[in-house]
Amino acid sequence: MSEVIDKARLAGTALQTMNRLTSGQKNEALNRMAEALVAGRDAILEANAQDLARGRDNGTTPSLLDRLALNETRIAGIAEGLRQIAELPDPVGDLLESFERPNGLRIERVRVPLGVIGMIYEARPNVTVDAAGLCLKTGNAVVLRGGSAALHTNRRIVETLRAALAETDVPADALQLIEDASRASVDEMLKLNGLIDVIIPRGGASLIRTVVENATVPVIETGAGICHTYIDESADPDMASNIAFNAKVQRPSVCNAMETLLVHESFAAVHLRRIAERLLAANVELRGCPATLRLIPEAKPATDEDYATEYNDYILNVRIVSGLDEALDHIRRFGTMHSECIVTENKLHAERFLQEVDAAAVYHNASTRFTDGFEFGFGAEIGISTQKLHARGPMGLPALTSSKYRIYGSGQIRE
Amino acid sequence: MSEVIDKARLAGTALQTMNRLTSGQKNEALNRMAEALVAGRDAILEANAQDLARGRDNGTTPSLLDRLALNETRIAGIAEGLRQIAELPDPVGDLLESFERPNGLRIERVRVPLGVIGMIYEARPNVTVDAAGLCLKTGNAVVLRGGSAALHTNRRIVETLRAALAETDVPADALQLIEDASRASVDEMLKLNGLIDVIIPRGGASLIRTVVENATVPVIETGAGICHTYIDESADPDMASNIAFNAKVQRPSVCNAMETLLVHESFAAVHLRRIAERLLAANVELRGCPATLRLIPEAKPATDEDYATEYNDYILNVRIVSGLDEALDHIRRFGTMHSECIVTENKLHAERFLQEVDAAAVYHNASTRFTDGFEFGFGAEIGISTQKLHARGPMGLPALTSSKYRIYGSGQIRE
Repeated sequence: MSEVIDKARLAGTALQTMNRLTSGQKNEALNRMAEALVAGRDAILEANAQDLARGRDNGTTPSLLDRLALNETRIAGIAEGLRQIAELPDPVGDLLESFERPNGLRIERVRVPLGVIGMIYEARPNVTVDAAGLCLKTGNAVVLRGGSAALHTNRRIVETLRAALAETDVPADALQLIEDASRASVDEMLKLNGLIDVIIPRGGASLIRTVVENATVPVIETGAGICHTYIDESADPDMASNIAFNAKVQRPSVCNAMETLLVHESFAAVHLRRIAERLLAANVELRGCPATLRLIPEAKPATDEDYATEYNDYILNVRIVSGLDEALDHIRRFGTMHSECIVTENKLHAERFLQEVDAAAVYHNASTRFTDGFEFGFGAEIGISTQKLHARGPMGLPALTSSKYRIYGSGQIRE
Repeated sequence: MSEVIDKARLAGTALQTMNRLTSGQKNEALNRMAEALVAGRDAILEANAQDLARGRDNGTTPSLLDRLALNETRIAGIAEGLRQIAELPDPVGDLLESFERPNGLRIERVRVPLGVIGMIYEARPNVTVDAAGLCLKTGNAVVLRGGSAALHTNRRIVETLRAALAETDVPADALQLIEDASRASVDEMLKLNGLIDVIIPRGGASLIRTVVENATVPVIETGAGICHTYIDESADPDMASNIAFNAKVQRPSVCNAMETLLVHESFAAVHLRRIAERLLAANVELRGCPATLRLIPEAKPATDEDYATEYNDYILNVRIVSGLDEALDHIRRFGTMHSECIVTENKLHAERFLQEVDAAAVYHNASTRFTDGFEFGFGAEIGISTQKLHARGPMGLPALTSSKYRIYGSGQIRE
């Protein structure tokens, strides 16, 4: 039997126990996991050093090495994340609906765990702990398949966490790590209908695409974001400048950062130069439409391919539009239904934008950078769904649950 | 451009209009569609006669021909279904959550249409109208791909409905029928990410399997049901007999009918013979475990393959178990997470069964045949989801919606 099937089966068996646990038992386990991480940090850092050394030998970029690297402070932060998850309300068992039918049947809909969750992600050891914590909190079992570049670290972390679980009521088998670093193990997970209930990919566009294109197990698609800010004719110039600057520059590498700025032509004629100078001063490369190039000669020409690219970098497309309709058309064509913003003092335009733009999060007068589970107050985030099924936008704990109908009868049969 | 891409694009364009419609405008369109079906019944029946003739020539079974056949009464019933959908509350625009963050951001979550829904189904013309009505009511556009054996009928129905829509505010392009009867058109729909938001298959196990195995577009899996009734030691004998009989015999061809009866050994010793005689008298073929065969010599031996089969027919597996745990094990192994029932007077056993059985609908003392949108009081049903993502169990109008976050700011940026 393959490692993937073997471990998915073990996870499925653990579900039977998970299903009977109280919130208190799960929270106790999360706190023990946190303690174990801190207590076991030396061994984890040693494993991490191995991964980092191999990464450097392989010419891994500094930013990827930074995502892979752990230190005492980071481990303490990751452990603290587990304690915070323990503090959050447990959605499992929540009564979502309750009604009685004329024939006397009482029907309740209650939240239940999703089951076995397959997480496929890149070489970020914090995701290993985070995903484990969120999945166990919600009564699920989880099969983790992290990036091969973090394998030593992940193996040590999961050994540590499973050893901690062994002393709690949460079965250690609810937490599984796939160690086969080949692409074959991913492909196998993606087709494990019946043993894995849902796959959640976390990572860059190519990882997401691989998962979506090959999975037969249901997937929650996360992450890709080509986000726009549209500055309308009536926008407050300072507010517009601040929102655009924040959406691009505050953290360009993330999915809710802005990739294209759309500007009303009248506003652009008066104010774009000043906004552009602020962006250029922050080392943002500008790529513009022909009208933009006339106002901002420092910009390069923008192509349709640029408009369709998630840079995740200090690069911004700028396009001048004749008004709201042209902005809406552009977003329809190039947006990825993640986060879109209008800056305007015109309430009707704001309402039209919020109504007509088809995206997980639509903003009036605020930076797209707020699309985030913590910023929304969920206390946790398993990812940001960019699909329309099941969950849309930042996913907190309830996104890791399903529901079932419990029906109480007294002998009812169907006529 | 292919027919599928062409029509999916047209449907997507129609969404922009759908998104602005009021419930009144949509309901008006549904009522017009109903009128048009009745007014156009002669042409529809003529087309249906062509399909039926071809079906008979091809040796189609009587039960499939019956599903395909229309008559005046059936058309009137289908039209009445549209009028009933018009009467239902429109979930689109419902405010699901509303909260304010410490930084002053006001965040609302509202229900929105799913978008373009691809329906793939068999030669049942009523599904054509039903799916069109449910999708349009919820502001979606729909691309229908019905079984080729109903092509003439579906074409005439969709022409009729589109002509009716042309006189309403609902764009006719929101309703599309794929006429390419080859498997290629199904395959194309299944991979049309970006143009189709969700695929809902309705039909038998092999159709569902084809869709789940090949789709890259998100799917809502429906339908397959290997449903069990477990008669516990303390069950009321008459109630148990009535529920088991109803779950098997009232309509064996549907997914919520029972396929396997599990019986506690003590109960079986006293009462199984009487229940079996009632089933045998209704022409139900029984297949039993060795212990069952000793009590019911009329039964054939049941194999594991039998336990894993959805008969949808007058065939029933009977297995005698030592108690609740063995029943739970059997259901875990052979169930399809559709509908499962325990008949018992023991409240603790009932609670354990409802808690531990992982299925869309779990029953205490009522027939599994109630798993149905109308029986649940939803007033409509697009199918019964047997997956855990997005919707689980009977799907009413809300299952055809997604949500989006609308965020109202006053210049907030992220620190």
